[in-house]
Amino acid sequence: MLSFDNILQRIEQEVSQLRFDYPPKSLYTPIEYILSLGGKRIRPALTLIACNIYKDAVDDVIPAALCLEVFHNFTLLHDDLMDQADKRRNKPTVHKVWNANTAILSGDAMLIAAYNVLAHSRPEYMEELLGLFTMTALEICGGQQYDMEFELRAEVSEEEYIEMIRLKTAVLMACGLKMGAIVGGAAKEDAEHLYQYGLNIGLAFQLRDDLLDVYGNPETFGKNIGGDILCNKKTFLLIHALRKASPEQQKELHGWFEKKSYVPEEKIAAFRHIYDDLGLKEMAESKIQYYYNEALLHFSRLNVPDEKLIVLKEVSDILLHRES
Amino acid sequence: MLSFDNILQRIEQEVSQLRFDYPPKSLYTPIEYILSLGGKRIRPALTLIACNIYKDAVDDVIPAALCLEVFHNFTLLHDDLMDQADKRRNKPTVHKVWNANTAILSGDAMLIAAYNVLAHSRPEYMEELLGLFTMTALEICGGQQYDMEFELRAEVSEEEYIEMIRLKTAVLMACGLKMGAIVGGAAKEDAEHLYQYGLNIGLAFQLRDDLLDVYGNPETFGKNIGGDILCNKKTFLLIHALRKASPEQQKELHGWFEKKSYVPEEKIAAFRHIYDDLGLKEMAESKIQYYYNEALLHFSRLNVPDEKLIVLKEVSDILLHRES
Repeated sequence: MLSFDNILQRIEQEVSQLRFDYPPKSLYTPIEYILSLGGKRIRPALTLIACNIYKDAVDDVIPAALCLEVFHNFTLLHDDLMDQADKRRNKPTVHKVWNANTAILSGDAMLIAAYNVLAHSRPEYMEELLGLFTMTALEICGGQQYDMEFELRAEVSEEEYIEMIRLKTAVLMACGLKMGAIVGGAAKEDAEHLYQYGLNIGLAFQLRDDLLDVYGNPETFGKNIGGDILCNKKTFLLIHALRKASPEQQKELHGWFEKKSYVPEEKIAAFRHIYDDLGLKEMAESKIQYYYNEALLHFSRLNVPDEKLIVLKEVSDILLHRES
Repeated sequence: MLSFDNILQRIEQEVSQLRFDYPPKSLYTPIEYILSLGGKRIRPALTLIACNIYKDAVDDVIPAALCLEVFHNFTLLHDDLMDQADKRRNKPTVHKVWNANTAILSGDAMLIAAYNVLAHSRPEYMEELLGLFTMTALEICGGQQYDMEFELRAEVSEEEYIEMIRLKTAVLMACGLKMGAIVGGAAKEDAEHLYQYGLNIGLAFQLRDDLLDVYGNPETFGKNIGGDILCNKKTFLLIHALRKASPEQQKELHGWFEKKSYVPEEKIAAFRHIYDDLGLKEMAESKIQYYYNEALLHFSRLNVPDEKLIVLKEVSDILLHRES
């Protein structure tokens, strides 16, 4: 069985060997740029790990794993443009290095390239992998649409928020695990438990991201701290702040929403102060624990010997406690 | 055998029955909008016609044909945003009705939806159709990249221009015909001749488009007349104008390129006057005839009885003499 380090090394090597050799080169330089920025490679790692539970050789699942990594980076490329984000993984975003049109068109080519990578899968898995990936990709677009719509809405419920992050973040991890299960030859029930496991881990992962935006270490986080706060993003924290705030705190929050010009650090500090006062950090952490426990439930129902699940358990713990 | 009218009716009916039922609805309204604007449906028509040469029932090729129509409209959606075009088929473009972010994200969903439609093809054709479609889609992104780069360049050769329109326009028609041949069960040689036929018809089609931008009827053309001239697009006409112009005409053209503020109609009239003076309309028409003759050469090598080719011949003539 491959260790987590083995798996990450294999993915890094495979990503670096990806070739985008269609003319013109200028269309693919931004793609190679964003893929070279690194990142946790967590989605392809989950795919290889899931496959490796059922099969020693993971070569057959490499196309599916790379497809997800290329697709994930495509979504970052277009989302950063839509969100007008300046930084990604501590480097300037594609539309900053080049321009908006390059980000649109290279992103489009990257989405097609993801399908091109997937098409190298063995024919016997193609139909199932293609269907799963395509449905997942549509769900992720739906998640981004909700995300943008929520920024313009005065109120968003926790339920709506969880549905948004399920679509935007969790389904891709779930898809990666299920793709690994399919190519690994897992039973239908196991593939479904891995999918549900991925959904719950994905929800916990995104809630951790919300927390890191406020409480993370700028050195390790890779994005600007407070980015969500500055664009009034209805995160889990803000949704509950708006629900639990005292009349004075309500007034302060809405005052910040309407302010057109301010010192960013002051707005971030003000929000953090309110979040601290309302105990929202602890509330988010308990919600993360809830989804983690849900994930473990599906994990425990997998019909494989415990020793096959060591790496998956290890990665789940890393994701739960991540600082970046 | 189906008539061209039968085929167009079938496509219109199939397009109107396309359902985009994934939440949120707001992501799919722009997709339904652009698909409802009509258009010639020439790409899916070519796919059905090619299939119908080899097989009476065309049902099996409907997913491939619809995939191409959805994909083509996706490219229009994103290209219009990149080109900042206000009108498409005489109606406001998606980024004008909604906004840039909606155009980006709904476009992305539309590209994925094209794959979702293609995935309904019969499994025995999937690998070949998927590979052909994906390579074609990448080529089309390459064509758009060249197109945007050429606008910033002082000089573009005819050869570079033809390569650009081959990628941007011709390969999709060629792909449509070849997909029809594949599903129809044509011999490899026939499929390749239909592909080459499509490339040449596509080049003639785009050169006709260049002409219509200058000499077309605004009532039937669907786009604003002179759009290419106003954005200094290096079309076949402008490339040869720059090559053949007298020193005074050179000065006039470059004067217009640099002007920041002007009456659009005056610029269009000035270019048209120079094009007329240099005989470029006739030159473009002879180039169109050249590609049409090349197309006919591949047509004549198809290994099928002549009566099977009546509809394809009819459509080629319509494309060659089109006014819209």
